[in-house]
Amino acid sequence: MNKDLAIRELTEKFGTRLNVSAADRERHGQDESSHAVMMPDAVLYAAGTGDVVAAIEICARHRMPVIPFGAGTSLEGHVAAPHGGLSLDLSMMNRVLAVHENDLDVRVEAGVTRQALNAYLRDKGLFFPVDPGSECTLGGMVATRASGTNAVRYGTMREQVLSLKVVTATGEVIETGNRARKSAAGYDLTHLFVGSEGTLGVVTEMTLRVYGRPEKLMAGVCRFPNLQAAIDTVIATIQLGLPVARIELLDELSVKAVNAYSGLDHTEMPTLFLEFHGSAPAVDAEVSSFSRLAKEFGGSAIEFADRQEDINKLWHARHQLYYATRAMAPGKHVLTTDVCVPISRLGDCMLETRHDLDESPVMGTMLGHVGDGNFHTILLADPNNNGEMRELERLHERMVTRAIEMGGTCTGEHGIGLGKIKYLEKEKGPAVHLMRQIKAALDPIGIMNPGKLLPNPSLGEEMDNQR
Amino acid sequence: MNKDLAIRELTEKFGTRLNVSAADRERHGQDESSHAVMMPDAVLYAAGTGDVVAAIEICARHRMPVIPFGAGTSLEGHVAAPHGGLSLDLSMMNRVLAVHENDLDVRVEAGVTRQALNAYLRDKGLFFPVDPGSECTLGGMVATRASGTNAVRYGTMREQVLSLKVVTATGEVIETGNRARKSAAGYDLTHLFVGSEGTLGVVTEMTLRVYGRPEKLMAGVCRFPNLQAAIDTVIATIQLGLPVARIELLDELSVKAVNAYSGLDHTEMPTLFLEFHGSAPAVDAEVSSFSRLAKEFGGSAIEFADRQEDINKLWHARHQLYYATRAMAPGKHVLTTDVCVPISRLGDCMLETRHDLDESPVMGTMLGHVGDGNFHTILLADPNNNGEMRELERLHERMVTRAIEMGGTCTGEHGIGLGKIKYLEKEKGPAVHLMRQIKAALDPIGIMNPGKLLPNPSLGEEMDNQR
Repeated sequence: MNKDLAIRELTEKFGTRLNVSAADRERHGQDESSHAVMMPDAVLYAAGTGDVVAAIEICARHRMPVIPFGAGTSLEGHVAAPHGGLSLDLSMMNRVLAVHENDLDVRVEAGVTRQALNAYLRDKGLFFPVDPGSECTLGGMVATRASGTNAVRYGTMREQVLSLKVVTATGEVIETGNRARKSAAGYDLTHLFVGSEGTLGVVTEMTLRVYGRPEKLMAGVCRFPNLQAAIDTVIATIQLGLPVARIELLDELSVKAVNAYSGLDHTEMPTLFLEFHGSAPAVDAEVSSFSRLAKEFGGSAIEFADRQEDINKLWHARHQLYYATRAMAPGKHVLTTDVCVPISRLGDCMLETRHDLDESPVMGTMLGHVGDGNFHTILLADPNNNGEMRELERLHERMVTRAIEMGGTCTGEHGIGLGKIKYLEKEKGPAVHLMRQIKAALDPIGIMNPGKLLPNPSLGEEMDNQR
Repeated sequence: MNKDLAIRELTEKFGTRLNVSAADRERHGQDESSHAVMMPDAVLYAAGTGDVVAAIEICARHRMPVIPFGAGTSLEGHVAAPHGGLSLDLSMMNRVLAVHENDLDVRVEAGVTRQALNAYLRDKGLFFPVDPGSECTLGGMVATRASGTNAVRYGTMREQVLSLKVVTATGEVIETGNRARKSAAGYDLTHLFVGSEGTLGVVTEMTLRVYGRPEKLMAGVCRFPNLQAAIDTVIATIQLGLPVARIELLDELSVKAVNAYSGLDHTEMPTLFLEFHGSAPAVDAEVSSFSRLAKEFGGSAIEFADRQEDINKLWHARHQLYYATRAMAPGKHVLTTDVCVPISRLGDCMLETRHDLDESPVMGTMLGHVGDGNFHTILLADPNNNGEMRELERLHERMVTRAIEMGGTCTGEHGIGLGKIKYLEKEKGPAVHLMRQIKAALDPIGIMNPGKLLPNPSLGEEMDNQR
C-alpha cells in the first residue's frame, strides 16, 4: 500500500472534504461498542456516487483499504480500520430521491437515517418499519442486515430492499435490481450485498419498500410473574400465527435500566412491550386472542398507551436500552450478544442463559425481539479486571454454542464485523469457503473493509504482508 | 470433455441408475415449453446427496456438464442440454425429512413436489403457499425462484427458503443457513442459490417455512365489464394495503380456455379469482373493503365458492391455464412471457400489451399474478410459419422493453434459462459482469448447467471449444 501517495491524490481530488485530523480519524475508527479504536488514515465525506467511484479508483491503485462509514452505530467494530485506510463517510449523502406512494417504495441515498426517512414519510401516511435502537443510516442497516422491533411482522432489511446501487471494488457502478416486487432474472445480487458489511462494495443508493400506516394501532405492556411465563406467551403467540407487529421482551433488570435512564416507572417485572397493526376488527381480534394467551400464562392485562405521545415514549425507552444498560455502570466494557434460535427453543435458550448470568459475577440485561427467536444480553465488565473480561467471553461462547446446537445463529441482526469472526466458521462450516471465493472474485485485491466478516486466512492479513 | 470415460465411470458407480436410453435422454432434454429438445448424454437417478457428490466429482474430472432435473416443468429450457452432459434427476429424492410444527418449518429433499408436501402437511393444519401451475419439485422451484398465486401475501420461494444443502461444482457439501428466522452471519448464500438455475451447484435438501391454515378462508370470482376495470380494482386493492391471499386476473380468452379445458361455465368476461385468509373478523372486513372497491370500478359481487371442493376446483382450473391455452390450438409453438412491473404501471403495461395482441395475427391469452404486478401472455404460433414465429419474438421483445422502461423485469417467476438470456443484459446492465465473476468463482471449469442464465461469452461455449 502506498498510503502517502493515495492520500495526496485524494486530497487533490477532494480538497477539504478529505480530512486527516486525529479527532476525525478517531471518531471514524470506532462504533458504539467497546471494540478498540482503530483509526483510518483519512476520512472522506462523499457527496455522491461519483465521489465513491473516484475514491475507490484511487484507493485500488494504491491498495489502500476502503471502509464505508454511515453513522458509526454498529456494535461489532464494523467501521474500525485494523489495516488503516480510507474511511468513506456517506452521511452527507442524505437525500430522499423519490417517494412512489402508489407503489409503496422509496429511493434514498445511503446516508439517510431511518428516523429521517420516517420523518419525511409521516405526512404521506407511510412508514419504514426496520428500527435498530440507534440513529443509524439506511446504508449501514443494509450492510449489517439489520432488523429491530417490527421484524416479526414486516421482516428485516433483507425483506425491504428492492434494489441497490453499488460501487464495486473495481469502481464499477451497478444496480442490483429494479422496482418490481419480484424477479427471477439472474443471480440475486441484492441479497448478496445486504449483510456484506462493506466487504464487497459500497452501497450508495437504494430502493426500499415502505408501508401504509395501519388503520388501527394499539400499543402497550404486559407484565409476567417470571421470565418463563413471558417467553411461553411469546412462543404460543407465534405458534398461533397471531400477526403481532411488535413483541419485545425485557427482563427485570432491563426494566430497571429503562426506568432509571428514561425516567419511567414501569413495575420491575419481566415485561412484554407490544404493538398490534391492522384493520380495526383485525386488531381487536388479535388483542383479545393475545390477552387470552397471556392470562393463561399468568400475565397481566395489557396496559395500553393511549396517546401517540405515550406510544412514542414507550418505544423510545425500548430503543434506548443499550444506552440505558451502559449507563448502569459507566466506564465498564460492554459486550452485546445477539443469538437467534427457532421459536420452539427460545424458552430453553433464554432460561439457560439467564441461569448462566445468575451464576456469573458479571452483570447483564436480557431483552429481545423474541417473536423472531432473537434476544440480546448486554454484559458489563470492568475492563481492568482480566477475570471479568474473560468471563464475558466465556458467557458469549456458551451462548453461541447453545444457539448453534439449537439450530440457530450467533447473530440475528448485528452482523459479524470483528467481534463475531471467531464464530462464523463454527456456525457455517465449509460454507465459509464459498464466502471466501466470492470475496476473492468481487474484491480481488482485498481493499473493501479488510479484516471484517471473514475469518483467517483473511485478505486483510495478506495486505499487511504487502505493506 | 471425455464423455465416454465419464459415462463408463458413472455406470461403474451407479449401475442401472445411470440410463443412456434415447427415450430417457429425450425426456430429460426438454421441459414443458416449446424450446427445442437438447438431449443429455446420460441420465442419473440420484438417491441422496452422496450420489450427487460422487456424480459431480466424476463429471468434474472429465469436464462433463451436469444439468439438475426435477420434474422438467420449467418454461425456459432450463433442463435442456445444449452441450450434452449428465442430467441429474433428483425426483427419487422425495422424502419429507422433518416437520417442525412448532417452528412452522420443514426439511425436505429437493425432489419433493409442492403437491406432495401439501398432502403431507394437510392433517397437521399446515400448508406451503408457493404454487406454480405445474406439478413441480421444490428443488426446481428453488432453482427458478418460482412463485405463484399466493405470492402477493406470502412471498415467493425467495421468502420461504431458510436454508439449503448444496453440492458445489467441486463436490463440496455446504449448508447455507439454519432454522433461525433471521441471521446476520456472513454472505447470504441461501439467496444466491435461490434462482441460480443449477448454474452454481445442486440443491439436494432444504428447510422451508410453512404456515398454519388460516382460521377463515373465502374464495370466489369477481367479473368486470372490461380489462381496465379489473386492473384498476387490483391496483386499488394493493395500494389500500388489503392483505389478499390471492388475486389472479384472467382475460376473456383465458376464461374461455379454462371453461373448455376444465369443463366449467364461467361467464366469459375479464375475471378476478380471489382468496382471503385470516381471522374471521379480519376476513369479513377485507371482503367488504374489496367488494366496495370492485363495485366502484363496475365489478360484479363476488361469487363465492362455498365448499372446499369448489374452492379446489377453482384453483385447479387456474393452475391448468397454461395447458388450457395450449389445448386451444394443439401443435402450435408456445411462448410464455413473464414481465413484472411496479403496481402503479400495471394498467398501462397490460393494456398496451392487450392492444399489441389485438393488432397481431397471433393468438394469446393474458393472465397473471396481478397483485405482484406480474402477468403472463401465452402466445401461440404455427411453427411452420416463419412470419408468425417472428411475430412471437417481436411481441415478446416489445413487452420486455416496456416492462424494463417501467422499472420492471423481463421475468417475475419463470427465470432466464435459455429463453430470456438475450434480455438479462438489457435489464441488468453491468451487473451481469458481477454475475459472471460469481459463476467463474464458484464453478471454475463451467460444468454446472452451462449455457443457461448468463449471456455470451458463456462458460458453456468455452467448454465447447475444449471438446
